[in-house]
Amino acid sequence: MIPSKYIEDAVNEMASLPGVGRKTALRYVLDLLGRSEEEVERFTSAISELRKNIKLCNNCYNISDTEVCQICSNPSRDRSTLCVVEDIRDVMAIESTHQYKGLYHVLGGKISPMDGIGPGDLHVGGLLDRAASVDTHEIILALSATMEGDTTAYYLYKKFEQRKDVVVSTISRGVAVGDELQYADEVTLGRSILHRIPYDKSL
Amino acid sequence: MIPSKYIEDAVNEMASLPGVGRKTALRYVLDLLGRSEEEVERFTSAISELRKNIKLCNNCYNISDTEVCQICSNPSRDRSTLCVVEDIRDVMAIESTHQYKGLYHVLGGKISPMDGIGPGDLHVGGLLDRAASVDTHEIILALSATMEGDTTAYYLYKKFEQRKDVVVSTISRGVAVGDELQYADEVTLGRSILHRIPYDKSL
Repeated sequence: MIPSKYIEDAVNEMASLPGVGRKTALRYVLDLLGRSEEEVERFTSAISELRKNIKLCNNCYNISDTEVCQICSNPSRDRSTLCVVEDIRDVMAIESTHQYKGLYHVLGGKISPMDGIGPGDLHVGGLLDRAASVDTHEIILALSATMEGDTTAYYLYKKFEQRKDVVVSTISRGVAVGDELQYADEVTLGRSILHRIPYDKSL
Repeated sequence: MIPSKYIEDAVNEMASLPGVGRKTALRYVLDLLGRSEEEVERFTSAISELRKNIKLCNNCYNISDTEVCQICSNPSRDRSTLCVVEDIRDVMAIESTHQYKGLYHVLGGKISPMDGIGPGDLHVGGLLDRAASVDTHEIILALSATMEGDTTAYYLYKKFEQRKDVVVSTISRGVAVGDELQYADEVTLGRSILHRIPYDKSL
């Protein structure tokens, strides 16, 4: 039993966040209640400013504070390679590896007939325009290893099949670094063997 | 690497909530980013309204939308019993058991010399005033089973020791319902045996 309408409202809103139940929401709300009014004001304004000011990059649909995102506008990035991802979290994940110096293209989802999402709902048109540029030499399909991800990858592969000057690649699948073979699932282990690579003593 | 100052700010604020790391904070922020501006406005205003409008009950220091809380102003509650708790979460926890029909008194913490919290930092004065009323016949000390909780309970017990018309009780400690004896810790099991009660066939 929550003794206040204001707490009830705040708990309901907090519980709408992904993976947050009512008990955790109440914990968050009581923590906020223990802060000064300025601190709570800073908390709420950070969130509303975010929603009001955030933009999608005109080129790659990554989130950005400006019309063109930091990655697209960075002159030191390799403009010949486009990495196609589903969502901005994937951009952040790949960026944090420091292993990729090209540009991105964020689809905003994946083809999923079950959820009624077709190619028209994704940023595919923009990708075709960008890929049509003579600068583009490689397109990396970095999509989820799920049925929807594979469907989307195949759809995009067919679009670029005719382009003899563009290499279409996908990220490698296999046993994760640090994993033991006996605990890997069969499909992953099977792909690891199938797509074996020359031994590299530097790794 | 987070590509936007606005996201960075919002993630920092979300990560200030208890038990939320930066990865979870980012998940919350991206979820909010996917909502309409009205939904985000509803989210932030629920939190700021809460902070602006919430009050502490004049009697028991429970949180309340009004000067006197719902429990204190409810005429069907038993005014002869006061349950002393540390914090408003304890009120909610006891209320949800539906086993208690008396009033509460929220101390706002417990005596903890290590953290520099003495009786003067708690709502002890209000409790003494309330206990001085002729209506009060029982004071239940429902404090944590920790050193600080026990210190606070002893301090309060000493304050009421002279009052022959007031019974001071504490909640029972023992093996939790559903637990197996062999997994209970020795102190708890020891208290369970020491404070054994007549067998009640109705439970």
